[in-house]
Amino acid sequence: MNTIHVGILSTGTEILQGLYADTNAQWLSARLSAMGLHVVRHVAAPDRARDVADAIAYLGRTCQLVVMTGGLGPTEDDLTRQAVCEAFGTRLREDAKAWRMIVERFRHRGVAPPASNRVQCLIPEGARTLYNLWGTAPGFAIDRPPKGLPWFAALPGPPRENRPMFEKYLEREIARRFARGRIARIRTLHTVGISESALNDRLRALFEEIGDDPDRGIAFLSGDARVDIRLVARGADPAQVRASMNALSARVRRRVPPDCIYGSDRETLEAVVLRLMRKRGRRLAVAESCTGGQVASRLTDIAGSSDVFLAGWVAYSNEAKCSELGVRRSTLERHGAVSAETAAEMARGALDRSGADVAVSVTGIAGPGGGTKEKPVGLVWYGLAWREERKKGASGTVRCETFQTCFRSGREMVRRYASHRALDLVRRLAIGLPLELPKS
Amino acid sequence: MNTIHVGILSTGTEILQGLYADTNAQWLSARLSAMGLHVVRHVAAPDRARDVADAIAYLGRTCQLVVMTGGLGPTEDDLTRQAVCEAFGTRLREDAKAWRMIVERFRHRGVAPPASNRVQCLIPEGARTLYNLWGTAPGFAIDRPPKGLPWFAALPGPPRENRPMFEKYLEREIARRFARGRIARIRTLHTVGISESALNDRLRALFEEIGDDPDRGIAFLSGDARVDIRLVARGADPAQVRASMNALSARVRRRVPPDCIYGSDRETLEAVVLRLMRKRGRRLAVAESCTGGQVASRLTDIAGSSDVFLAGWVAYSNEAKCSELGVRRSTLERHGAVSAETAAEMARGALDRSGADVAVSVTGIAGPGGGTKEKPVGLVWYGLAWREERKKGASGTVRCETFQTCFRSGREMVRRYASHRALDLVRRLAIGLPLELPKS
Repeated sequence: MNTIHVGILSTGTEILQGLYADTNAQWLSARLSAMGLHVVRHVAAPDRARDVADAIAYLGRTCQLVVMTGGLGPTEDDLTRQAVCEAFGTRLREDAKAWRMIVERFRHRGVAPPASNRVQCLIPEGARTLYNLWGTAPGFAIDRPPKGLPWFAALPGPPRENRPMFEKYLEREIARRFARGRIARIRTLHTVGISESALNDRLRALFEEIGDDPDRGIAFLSGDARVDIRLVARGADPAQVRASMNALSARVRRRVPPDCIYGSDRETLEAVVLRLMRKRGRRLAVAESCTGGQVASRLTDIAGSSDVFLAGWVAYSNEAKCSELGVRRSTLERHGAVSAETAAEMARGALDRSGADVAVSVTGIAGPGGGTKEKPVGLVWYGLAWREERKKGASGTVRCETFQTCFRSGREMVRRYASHRALDLVRRLAIGLPLELPKS
Repeated sequence: MNTIHVGILSTGTEILQGLYADTNAQWLSARLSAMGLHVVRHVAAPDRARDVADAIAYLGRTCQLVVMTGGLGPTEDDLTRQAVCEAFGTRLREDAKAWRMIVERFRHRGVAPPASNRVQCLIPEGARTLYNLWGTAPGFAIDRPPKGLPWFAALPGPPRENRPMFEKYLEREIARRFARGRIARIRTLHTVGISESALNDRLRALFEEIGDDPDRGIAFLSGDARVDIRLVARGADPAQVRASMNALSARVRRRVPPDCIYGSDRETLEAVVLRLMRKRGRRLAVAESCTGGQVASRLTDIAGSSDVFLAGWVAYSNEAKCSELGVRRSTLERHGAVSAETAAEMARGALDRSGADVAVSVTGIAGPGGGTKEKPVGLVWYGLAWREERKKGASGTVRCETFQTCFRSGREMVRRYASHRALDLVRRLAIGLPLELPKS
């Protein structure tokens, strides 16, 4: 198959003035790359006729396919449509249906559309209108460009409009024309408690086997105190791609300790924890020191968390650890606030006081100050207290274990890593996995 | 002054494959735009000789100044330097000092540099080496390009390296050559509790006066449940620019209710709250329901918060509101969890139990479920309880007030807005401002 080169064109001064990063180019590139197409250029240019025409000409020299975002608004100086027409040797026509949709959209808000909106319905002759069900400005695709010019599509700038429009109107057409009908899917597996180098060791053989396979891809993405594994599968039909992705995913999961992969794609660790706890009818409380409310905040980010999450304490001072969670003053004096003993008493205290079935505690040294030789910055202790599932209610046997990590990094990453590990302890308990992390 | 056109070139497949957004282009564009230069193109291209040469040629047609990031690593296929030489009709030479710096850097880690690192010291003949004090790869600047070619600088890809390098080696030189020596500074004023349209009304005359003034700029940036005011001042010397910025900033502050601007640039609301409380020797506790720990988490994001922040409660369930904060069951039954009465009892409970001087509470309906006609999604009640400053200690007179906002938005934004407002109440109390928001 010939290599198909793709260009992404973004218009708008906000990007060129550095007010925002170009996330449209990022999203489109991820989707098109996954289809096996080679995105070889991003260009951002001002939303002016001359600049847009110049950028299209430049991209057309190396790319067979160009997707543009932005520049379809109703303002007067917005001559992008005209520039596209000039580049493709055509002229504008009004799309009556697009205008009716805009009128209808404004009617819903109880107003008539301003006259300036009418320019939004101007579409190059010969182009296919991409009706906008998510906003005002329609896009268009030039499916039959003149010889020597790229296949071209224009989408509005707002991501909440251009993303669904890409999926509805462009993705399959692009696959058919440029990727031998081969669509692609991306799956991201999220890991916790395993380093990138340990993952690399375990997946080395698979990396080597995949090599340059055009149908499969695997890569690591680090960030946010965790490592993700990004899988790509490509193929001629959706069922085949799905099967191929599942096979690849299963092979990765066989090689990575299964308890280190907590979810995929948009699944967050906090959502997984809530789902698992809800399924078992178990309720959760959290006692935090160094994470300062981050664990609770992540859990309550999720709509509907209130049926699982009962209560949280941010016991930042020693005083609060004693008065609010019942940590004994003698424990703090003998072992310090960052210790297995304090973590255990915090977790037990949170369990008792909330009436929850599971409680997790975090106490550590996030830095930059407060470290010592014995207890360096990055040291975190976790307590996990729970009532045995067979004996529900306050009379159930309470168990408690403690764990330690030392994550050398900045304050923000230490806190983020610690909140991951605390949530992961609850996940491991909920599905009966070993609570200790595998040695990597 | 002639308009100077700037191009930013980013190399690297991570950006073209959509793994990351191009934040280098964003940062450089913000700094260069602020200097009064017109960034007219961003181009991202693969880190291959042919593509880099092609992109430089394209940018050179419209730009007098091109800054490239990335492509200076030690790997074999990294022929960016060679491509730059070809574009500028020169060849590579080894910079001995750059190599000594790399050897020294590796020696610190107790190892010898791999032989492959040697290519990083190859610099185009006639170029100025930009020694890298923050990482391995040096950059370079072609200060005297052949006629018809742009002034050109290459910086390494990592932001923690290229940003200080830009400031140390390039900014003043670019100002001297292209901006008549005019440097620029950006100041961002952060607001809370005022809408963009209200700000617009209050600043309209100033906007009109500034018009196209090349020395001053003002714009709004919305996001993160708040509106920022971005000011730019330009001038020939640092003192003059500073004075001009201060004058512009003062004029904006005169027009906006002063209590709506809580800080500037990297100052966060939580840092301002901690600073003000610390200055007064006052300590803080937080009782959260719908914000679920976000207020506490934001406060404890700040290093050293433990001398002000004592304790937080995430009383998500009614049960926890009663048992942990002493909210009366009758209050919940009569007025509901989202009410002035419950907010007041939560704040008073947090104040009593923590021994803090100030406590703030938040209880609301973040959505998407749980709204009613009387209490819609987005309704949030806040309680603020404090001990009068004159009578310190537990015996001081306790006062308590309640406040309400209704921010119609998604769950995430409602929570974010509510945590802003809660922190802002503490700020207003600390500096003696009216606690109610101005009517806008």
